[in-house]
Amino acid sequence: MTSKMEDWRFPARYDQHYLPDPSSPYWFPHRETMDPQERDAAVLVRLREVMEYAYSTSTFYRTKWDAAGVKPADITSFEAFEQVPVVTKAEMRESQANHPPFGDYLCCDESEIHHIHGTSGTTGAPTAFAIGRRDWEVIADNHARILWGMGVRPGDTVFVAALFSLYLGSWGALAGAERLHCRVLPFGAGAQGMTARAVTWLARTKPKAFYATPSYALRLAEVADSEGIDPREFGLQVMFFSGEPGASVPAVRTAIEDAFGATVIDCGTMAEMTPFMSASATAGTPDGMLLWQDIVWHEVCDPETFRTVPYGSEGTPVYTHLERTSQPMIRLASNDLTRWVLEDNPCGRTYPKLPEGVYGRIDDMIHIRGENVYPTEVDNFLRGVSGYGGEHQIVVRRTGSMDEMIVRAECSYTDSGHPGGQRDAFERDTGAGLQSLLGVRVTFESVDAHTLERAEHKSRRVVDEREHTKR
Amino acid sequence: MTSKMEDWRFPARYDQHYLPDPSSPYWFPHRETMDPQERDAAVLVRLREVMEYAYSTSTFYRTKWDAAGVKPADITSFEAFEQVPVVTKAEMRESQANHPPFGDYLCCDESEIHHIHGTSGTTGAPTAFAIGRRDWEVIADNHARILWGMGVRPGDTVFVAALFSLYLGSWGALAGAERLHCRVLPFGAGAQGMTARAVTWLARTKPKAFYATPSYALRLAEVADSEGIDPREFGLQVMFFSGEPGASVPAVRTAIEDAFGATVIDCGTMAEMTPFMSASATAGTPDGMLLWQDIVWHEVCDPETFRTVPYGSEGTPVYTHLERTSQPMIRLASNDLTRWVLEDNPCGRTYPKLPEGVYGRIDDMIHIRGENVYPTEVDNFLRGVSGYGGEHQIVVRRTGSMDEMIVRAECSYTDSGHPGGQRDAFERDTGAGLQSLLGVRVTFESVDAHTLERAEHKSRRVVDEREHTKR
Repeated sequence: MTSKMEDWRFPARYDQHYLPDPSSPYWFPHRETMDPQERDAAVLVRLREVMEYAYSTSTFYRTKWDAAGVKPADITSFEAFEQVPVVTKAEMRESQANHPPFGDYLCCDESEIHHIHGTSGTTGAPTAFAIGRRDWEVIADNHARILWGMGVRPGDTVFVAALFSLYLGSWGALAGAERLHCRVLPFGAGAQGMTARAVTWLARTKPKAFYATPSYALRLAEVADSEGIDPREFGLQVMFFSGEPGASVPAVRTAIEDAFGATVIDCGTMAEMTPFMSASATAGTPDGMLLWQDIVWHEVCDPETFRTVPYGSEGTPVYTHLERTSQPMIRLASNDLTRWVLEDNPCGRTYPKLPEGVYGRIDDMIHIRGENVYPTEVDNFLRGVSGYGGEHQIVVRRTGSMDEMIVRAECSYTDSGHPGGQRDAFERDTGAGLQSLLGVRVTFESVDAHTLERAEHKSRRVVDEREHTKR
Repeated sequence: MTSKMEDWRFPARYDQHYLPDPSSPYWFPHRETMDPQERDAAVLVRLREVMEYAYSTSTFYRTKWDAAGVKPADITSFEAFEQVPVVTKAEMRESQANHPPFGDYLCCDESEIHHIHGTSGTTGAPTAFAIGRRDWEVIADNHARILWGMGVRPGDTVFVAALFSLYLGSWGALAGAERLHCRVLPFGAGAQGMTARAVTWLARTKPKAFYATPSYALRLAEVADSEGIDPREFGLQVMFFSGEPGASVPAVRTAIEDAFGATVIDCGTMAEMTPFMSASATAGTPDGMLLWQDIVWHEVCDPETFRTVPYGSEGTPVYTHLERTSQPMIRLASNDLTRWVLEDNPCGRTYPKLPEGVYGRIDDMIHIRGENVYPTEVDNFLRGVSGYGGEHQIVVRRTGSMDEMIVRAECSYTDSGHPGGQRDAFERDTGAGLQSLLGVRVTFESVDAHTLERAEHKSRRVVDEREHTKR
């Protein structure tokens, strides 16, 4: 059975000249459509191989697993695998502090490192990502395969509009598009005046595909509008996103589709998990994200026990690399929240699916007066309200012993101060609607359109002022 | 003779796995040290091949050369080649306006395009650069070869601190370092807060080599100082620069060397000419720039006749690609100014040299009261003045019928308003010194240190207000 799977081996090596038949919707037809149980059986063998590799090449995993009484050779069932202790971000930071700069989970020779990236470290010490030369090729191959699934083809122009720096999103999109023999315009983002220039270049080169964060796509549409250019004139067909949950938030998704007239595809797990596109929608299954289980092994787990939850249930993703030899992650705890299902996918791929994408981080969930509020719920709600100006802010603060939640939203109605006017009705109705949706008392305020800061990368809409009082 | 030259053919194809013997200072020992006349003879054959290729694949060159009565087959001497009409930037803009987006000098199939880059178009319509897939490999190979000449070796960490976007400088440095099997940290630049983060990552990863614009390196040193970190702690050994003439301006060069304690290497021709590193200093010949004539054919010409000037003379560079098959430039007029020599180079390479680098653009030269002033002269002078705060501005304006030149320089002396004090002396002496150096009357003003804007990319110090009155 394993022999039937295209180019299935560890360490992975793909034919760098391979391209599928142009009429095929699949890059690897067999691997993508095979019986999922057969695929899982092959993955189980691979998990053992990856663990043996990590055990023999890294002090980090050896120490961790020895302490837990786990031996790679014992991983003969998924039940056994689920007892492998998860890796946390805190452990990686500690490992890198003790073994700078790449930590004792590097697993390959330093001379094999091709690219160094990292977390931005705006909060806490940054983590360095070291990606090996062969791993980079394999990542490019996997991303090309997933882009193929989105409908991108050789010769298509792909516009990458996210900052090229430590952030891996833009680099991963670029590597995949290059491997797929696309024409790439690695435009980047982030510097002054770049968004207006992006509008010029999109109008001029009329790309087929586009990558950014969802926040930035909305920002770009606003800037295009302000320059009198309809974003639909860019002629984009496929827009794929990572870095934020937005592309699976229904109203954000609709807003992007409406503005650009393109198919919106959500993808992405975590930078540490590059090839991060291993969770991605496809042209035939454009909603949610499929879990390409032969690239990265995705489990959705109970956040306490880290055992998988049944299909249909909510849990936190736990990720395991199947092909990385530099800094392989084995059971990395994401702290994200999602729900998974296994059902027939219209595209024919036999992968499990996250129907609502990854809808939030456990850390991002706002705990207020015993209720849990997801910032994405607020975003989704506001985008459905007429008169909404496109940006908002959530402030949580403690007044005395009480927690208070303030939502400030832009409003395009300009008749402020007129009781019974549109702005007045917007404030009253939106505030009441939010309160009813969230089940907590909300102080709602409207501000004029174009007054709140727009995200040039990922949006940061939540200001939790209680954090300061806790420390 | 041609057979002796390593991998010498058109279209170029290099062995992607080749690396020199680690002890060799040369990537291609024979090509780099051979008799220059023999090399030139091989180049002459190549020029004919490149012209035949361009003539047969592009309407642009066919039309241009037919009109001038030039036939590729007739190029049997450099005298004949010097009669090939130069290509101007205006012609490329016109070609792209009539044949969007890449112009009728593309020369390869659009499906072969790998990357799209371009001019930033802050003034005038932007020009799009289309670079083919194989050309990109050849560019990477050439840049790897030149980086080897700078002393960079496989496994070295290379930090790239310039914006990744349309600008080709950062991408060219990256491609070369990747091909050389370096560890690359493609940090980029330009977004808010990135310079401070660059300081953190430089201190943490301690790269051997560094790429940026000279202005940005000085900015980075200031930010490091302000955070209490001595830039020498980064441990950089080789810093290579393009995008601006700074790395060949003696005082700028010294300022960077002093701040970082590293060897400063100047390189770079024009974005259109990528592999733009074809003019570059080496570890053994660190001053000025060598002209790697077997990668790009560099002529230094009379700016009126576009015939080469004798070695020892000043002129304007005219560039010809020897290996590009996508948008090959044949006799591209640079509008820059330089001086070339042919003498024994300490590194043993038998290339001509630009001892002072490319010291300015004809367009940048300030014509004032019949005198020519190079902005780099002002920069160089100020950096030698004690009390200089690190940044300045040159304003040229017309008052009545008279042109006036105002230089505003930062001063670190804070005793402003005290006649006979340090600030007072700084103003008087610097103003007089500038006037004597430039031969024109200068109104000199000092401002407090850290008050003028710093360049995040290339410096823009000249404000010529006369331009508005002309139009």
